[in-house]
Amino acid sequence: MNLVSSNFCFAGEQRRYAHRSSALDCEMHFSVYLPPAVRSGPAPVLFWLSGLTCTDENFVTKAGAQRYAAERGVALVAPDTSPRGTDVPDDPDNDWDFGHGAGFYLDATQSPWSSHYQMETYITAELPEVLTGIQGLDGSRTSIMGHSMGGHGALSLSFRHPSRYMSVSAFAPICAPSQCPWGEKAFGRYLGDDPDAWRAHDTCALIAEASHRIPLLVDQGEGDPFIDRQLMPDQLRDACTRHDHPLNLRLHPGYDHSYFFIATFIGEHIAHHAAALDAHPA
Amino acid sequence: MNLVSSNFCFAGEQRRYAHRSSALDCEMHFSVYLPPAVRSGPAPVLFWLSGLTCTDENFVTKAGAQRYAAERGVALVAPDTSPRGTDVPDDPDNDWDFGHGAGFYLDATQSPWSSHYQMETYITAELPEVLTGIQGLDGSRTSIMGHSMGGHGALSLSFRHPSRYMSVSAFAPICAPSQCPWGEKAFGRYLGDDPDAWRAHDTCALIAEASHRIPLLVDQGEGDPFIDRQLMPDQLRDACTRHDHPLNLRLHPGYDHSYFFIATFIGEHIAHHAAALDAHPA
Repeated sequence: MNLVSSNFCFAGEQRRYAHRSSALDCEMHFSVYLPPAVRSGPAPVLFWLSGLTCTDENFVTKAGAQRYAAERGVALVAPDTSPRGTDVPDDPDNDWDFGHGAGFYLDATQSPWSSHYQMETYITAELPEVLTGIQGLDGSRTSIMGHSMGGHGALSLSFRHPSRYMSVSAFAPICAPSQCPWGEKAFGRYLGDDPDAWRAHDTCALIAEASHRIPLLVDQGEGDPFIDRQLMPDQLRDACTRHDHPLNLRLHPGYDHSYFFIATFIGEHIAHHAAALDAHPA
Repeated sequence: MNLVSSNFCFAGEQRRYAHRSSALDCEMHFSVYLPPAVRSGPAPVLFWLSGLTCTDENFVTKAGAQRYAAERGVALVAPDTSPRGTDVPDDPDNDWDFGHGAGFYLDATQSPWSSHYQMETYITAELPEVLTGIQGLDGSRTSIMGHSMGGHGALSLSFRHPSRYMSVSAFAPICAPSQCPWGEKAFGRYLGDDPDAWRAHDTCALIAEASHRIPLLVDQGEGDPFIDRQLMPDQLRDACTRHDHPLNLRLHPGYDHSYFFIATFIGEHIAHHAAALDAHPA
């Protein structure tokens, strides 16, 4: 693990690391924000999973999250969105919604994708182990949030690994990937034709057999151009109602799918997680 | 003037415009943040001038300024840093510190630069006139701030146009462009050999004949790699001391030249300007 860069930010430190991932069989980057509170003890860890086309850097530069993480005493970890490198197979049509930048936070089972696309193992097992090498992080207290494809990742991973995350939230998540074009394309290629395999990574399906009762905090802009065809928050609301799962779905008139939307509400998400994580400022 | 994009952000609106500039003889972009306060009346205007290589978009996406502008009821205007387009001559060596992205906020007098590089006229005369076409802005109350080359721009333009700006501040400004490599290269090409022409755009020289007593708020990271050779805050302090000009120069251990530094302190700058501009939240 190599420290690629470090910048002072809100009295804490924004870092970027490179490392060789064994799960993904390639070189990866991730970003870590250490709040000033780490000087008096390890801080709980809040994962951010980004959306299609993003790297580990979009959230770090655009969300304005460091201020709130500093105020609350929470560390932020932002991984990349897929395996990377010329050895890693990419979308044959060079589309942006599959392959590089579009790992969908699952372990692919189909060739040629399965050799590198093991993002679920990377996020839930390998990266937490790697993070033990960074002083100031308390890996026993972790939560997860994300945006769009990363909102799907945060929600689905929280149901698939219920003991790992103390809280979960999402911005404009892909709620029912089995039923939308982005998800159909990705699941079909990464997971093949088996409908059970699809359901096992679909938040709306997972809610039916939820092994946790962690309340879901979800923000969705009503001016988001992807809301009806790709994101489907109504499906999420219906599934939560049907299976009596606690959901705080907040619809915001006018807001779209951009980081301007995320920046507006990220402070409330970090406050939500900080409470669940029992975080404390320095 | 065409509206290129509009995004809801902190209950206000982040906009980007394109227009034909007569001063620069090319198509230009600029960004405007309208705080929610504009619904109850026009907001004062705070200009942000960016540094070398930036466009109008860096500050908008990276500084996290909209939250503070929304809280204080200030509109933010971020212009580009030079004339743009294939017709506009660029650095013959394709370096990043001259030409496109490096207009230095002055009116060039030397060929071939003078035909397009008229950034002082653009920022202080043409753009304020263009802004009168946008509802919600009170052009009678304006202030200015900037970073690095844009810090030089904010400080030098405040001395050259003392009646135009009610307050001024800078992050890591180029304080004495006549004496540093970035400034020597730019001034030599844009302004020629005349030392008087250089002094007329050099903040440390302008302070000697200051026609305003507006206090300067300047933040500088002590971990900034450009501090000694390019930025020279000591020269600014010496000039202010010698000529009894009010200066609040704040040195911050560890902080560097990046937007992580700007994001950390931009809220205090906006509060400073909001007070001078008599701004009010909605």
